[in-house]
Amino acid sequence: MAHIKLPEGFPGIRGPLMFSPATAKPLRELAEILMRGPNTLTPAEREIIGTYVSSQNDCYYCQTCHGSTAAHHLGGNFQLINEIKRDFETAAISEKLKALLVIAGKVQQSGKQVRTEDIERARKHGATDMEIHDTVLIAASFCLFNRYVDGLATSAPTDPEVYRAIGEKTAKEGYLRPGGEKPIGIVDT
Amino acid sequence: MAHIKLPEGFPGIRGPLMFSPATAKPLRELAEILMRGPNTLTPAEREIIGTYVSSQNDCYYCQTCHGSTAAHHLGGNFQLINEIKRDFETAAISEKLKALLVIAGKVQQSGKQVRTEDIERARKHGATDMEIHDTVLIAASFCLFNRYVDGLATSAPTDPEVYRAIGEKTAKEGYLRPGGEKPIGIVDT
Repeated sequence: MAHIKLPEGFPGIRGPLMFSPATAKPLRELAEILMRGPNTLTPAEREIIGTYVSSQNDCYYCQTCHGSTAAHHLGGNFQLINEIKRDFETAAISEKLKALLVIAGKVQQSGKQVRTEDIERARKHGATDMEIHDTVLIAASFCLFNRYVDGLATSAPTDPEVYRAIGEKTAKEGYLRPGGEKPIGIVDT
Repeated sequence: MAHIKLPEGFPGIRGPLMFSPATAKPLRELAEILMRGPNTLTPAEREIIGTYVSSQNDCYYCQTCHGSTAAHHLGGNFQLINEIKRDFETAAISEKLKALLVIAGKVQQSGKQVRTEDIERARKHGATDMEIHDTVLIAASFCLFNRYVDGLATSAPTDPEVYRAIGEKTAKEGYLRPGGEKPIGIVDT
């Protein structure tokens, strides 16, 4: 049970976002710009960074939703997402993305963990200043989202089909939900 | 030296905010609503929560800026801020704020650390659902801000006078900076 009374039918971050619309607005805008705005990192790469940080923070809801979103951006490649979470260094992703995941993993622990060598590795594989910036901010933002979800003990669906549907919808429509949020059922997300 | 090329004269979070205006907009709006918007927690109490989380994350720039902002909200009481950072349980603050700082400290580690007993202690001293929500979100947001500042290895002034001036300005004018940000000197922040 959640630590505070949240609207029913809205698992994970959706509950607190509904509970506090004033703070939901900038949080949704941040997610939209960061994960889907104009960027040399693809939406899939950015969702992979968010998924990896959420898995390191052991946030089941976030890692499953964003893993599903990333997989949908990649034509339904859930296997790759699982491989990245298990060991991204051996996964079938670019050397640049591996180097950015190293930086994201350090930021997840503490910003102070990021070393010059980590930045040099990313640059060697073509990462720009903006891509390094965005990686740090995505990782830092998921440290917020994960804590918001788990710090209030929000509910998380157990049915994989719900996460598949959430990922499909988010990959298509993004984070702003201009028409408001509907309660989550098996298919209607 | 910062890990990426940031505009000169803008220490701490100011550098990355100038570097990436698109993400700066929702981040500034989040800070403004969370720290200064209509709320039953005073701006001083909210700044104390942010300062405490920043000190637990060992983020020198953030804990010193927000500590100074909190002190200015309290008529210049820097001693209380130092006492809270050293041991908030023995500091001259309300029992409710102490209980909220326990929750904030758990969120700083991981959202999963927050226990029902922590919530019950806060409720016992009068905390509402909204105050518990805001405490979790402030703590989670500073986990973002601190990582953004330290993950890019931004610069931090050493002169205490600079932080005094930043705190005074932020307490008066807030986080939106509609006229843009000026480079930081000794007095002009």
